[in-house]
Amino acid sequence: MSAPIKMVLDLDTGIDDALALAYVLGCPDVELVAVVCSYGNVTVGTATRNTLALLRMLGHPEVPVYRGVDRALGAKGEFRPPAGVVRIHGENGLGGQELSGWCYAAPRSGVDYLAQTLDEADEGLRYVPTGPLTNLALALRATSVDARALPRVTFMGGALTVPGNVTPCAEANIHNDPEAADAVLRSGLPTRMVGLDVTHRVVLTRAETARWRALGTPAGRFFADMTDHYIGVYEKSNPHMGGCALHDPLAVAASIDPSLVGCHAANLRVDLDGATRGRTVCDPDRLRVAEKDCEVALGVDVPRFLEVFLAHVERALT
Amino acid sequence: MSAPIKMVLDLDTGIDDALALAYVLGCPDVELVAVVCSYGNVTVGTATRNTLALLRMLGHPEVPVYRGVDRALGAKGEFRPPAGVVRIHGENGLGGQELSGWCYAAPRSGVDYLAQTLDEADEGLRYVPTGPLTNLALALRATSVDARALPRVTFMGGALTVPGNVTPCAEANIHNDPEAADAVLRSGLPTRMVGLDVTHRVVLTRAETARWRALGTPAGRFFADMTDHYIGVYEKSNPHMGGCALHDPLAVAASIDPSLVGCHAANLRVDLDGATRGRTVCDPDRLRVAEKDCEVALGVDVPRFLEVFLAHVERALT
Repeated sequence: MSAPIKMVLDLDTGIDDALALAYVLGCPDVELVAVVCSYGNVTVGTATRNTLALLRMLGHPEVPVYRGVDRALGAKGEFRPPAGVVRIHGENGLGGQELSGWCYAAPRSGVDYLAQTLDEADEGLRYVPTGPLTNLALALRATSVDARALPRVTFMGGALTVPGNVTPCAEANIHNDPEAADAVLRSGLPTRMVGLDVTHRVVLTRAETARWRALGTPAGRFFADMTDHYIGVYEKSNPHMGGCALHDPLAVAASIDPSLVGCHAANLRVDLDGATRGRTVCDPDRLRVAEKDCEVALGVDVPRFLEVFLAHVERALT
Repeated sequence: MSAPIKMVLDLDTGIDDALALAYVLGCPDVELVAVVCSYGNVTVGTATRNTLALLRMLGHPEVPVYRGVDRALGAKGEFRPPAGVVRIHGENGLGGQELSGWCYAAPRSGVDYLAQTLDEADEGLRYVPTGPLTNLALALRATSVDARALPRVTFMGGALTVPGNVTPCAEANIHNDPEAADAVLRSGLPTRMVGLDVTHRVVLTRAETARWRALGTPAGRFFADMTDHYIGVYEKSNPHMGGCALHDPLAVAASIDPSLVGCHAANLRVDLDGATRGRTVCDPDRLRVAEKDCEVALGVDVPRFLEVFLAHVERALT
């Protein structure tokens, strides 16, 4: 038996982040080393609280949780999710399903923790941010290691060949901090982008959540109700999809098993000005550079991902 | 020896269209059946005149030339190239190099000719538009055949993963008639898009044009001077490129030999409104449809294309 994959997540813990967390905890090959929290679907405080409560519910209270930054690099005040985002993930970020009890985050800042983790990273480390890239951008500034030498970071975010979900060009995670995403994508860090190009093609339906409810466990009921809220939002906003997109779980899955996605190698930047602000796009200045630092997922093996997703999540909820 | 490939070009004959024309005439495997003309780099009248004169210069006065439409589907007046385009291709569309003599286009309209050609097309036909897709959109309306059953059309235009060259989102050919391009891309017609994703990676330098001049032929001198004008424009606007992009020749080359480009299969639309007007992007409504009608070139074998390009053009100029 080989050593488990060591994974650090960076979550803005709303509903699909919770599904990604369950995926990781249900994956027998992975050891979740820590979770850093971010703002986006909720405030960083709510993300931290949700992560701690979910870890306890899923039987892993030992995993340390670090609170990351509360706002974008250029923002003046703490991030508060806009009304549209609150509608999607619910007031508490988990579709309104109540989580009881108090939880305490680790006292250390998420950026400090992440910077040290990158400093000490060997090639086996899998760090997967599923929110804005602010924590990562700050950690890269704080480390002394060359970004080019770090292990590949798989992130959920961006839209290279499809429209955005906040503006015609911008996907939500990039939109929440374009400057951070641009700094990361132009740092030389090896990345794998799992964006709307592929995440809008992996869809979960009420048939699957019914199976979770039928497990008869508190976690099964919680995840079924929480995800049904999310599916309900999609039924109104994207009725043609027939369910909800599994954004964050696909990023986690592609980090563990890159063969689930088909990638186009590219050097990306983020548009920072004008109507296209927040767009991920090939950097014209590096178009003819042979070395490409980003693997952009443009294809996905939908049936195989869904099969693995359901197996892992069911294991975590049982 | 196999039968030659039958090709119909649709050119808005500026400088890179002229290079594409020379490429085709210098390719021993191709029979140029006709050229339909369009507006874009120049007016349709100038494009027709340039095409006729170039065919005569290159020893193929027998190829019929049809004048296509003079404006976009939604335009009120005849298309006139804006100042920026006149600067790139010159007043006469050929970098100011003089072409003497009178020429007469075929009396039939380009759209009529194209509609009949599509009606009668067998799978071997290669129709390659390198300007706006207006003639094609009108011909599709006029034919009775199912667009899905037509042979694949390779066109130069669009930008899926890179910025546009007219706006941050729009490439010039699509920008010149977004409605026509959208109608074509959503018609079900099999297409191959050769856009800025790849054409900005194939660059011609003054070293190559010097070789054409050294041929000592009138056509060699003409093409060297014309292309040096084009390179001069790029030296000011895109100094990092070190030469000019071979947009239209790459589309023609990919139509003849698709293995020159690596493609991503997708279903595209064109944004028609707002700041992204003229953008080619994956159609969200067809993202999960398994059948994809467009092969979008995202990779290109640069050395092999340049080798073939130089061999074909040199043959045409000799």
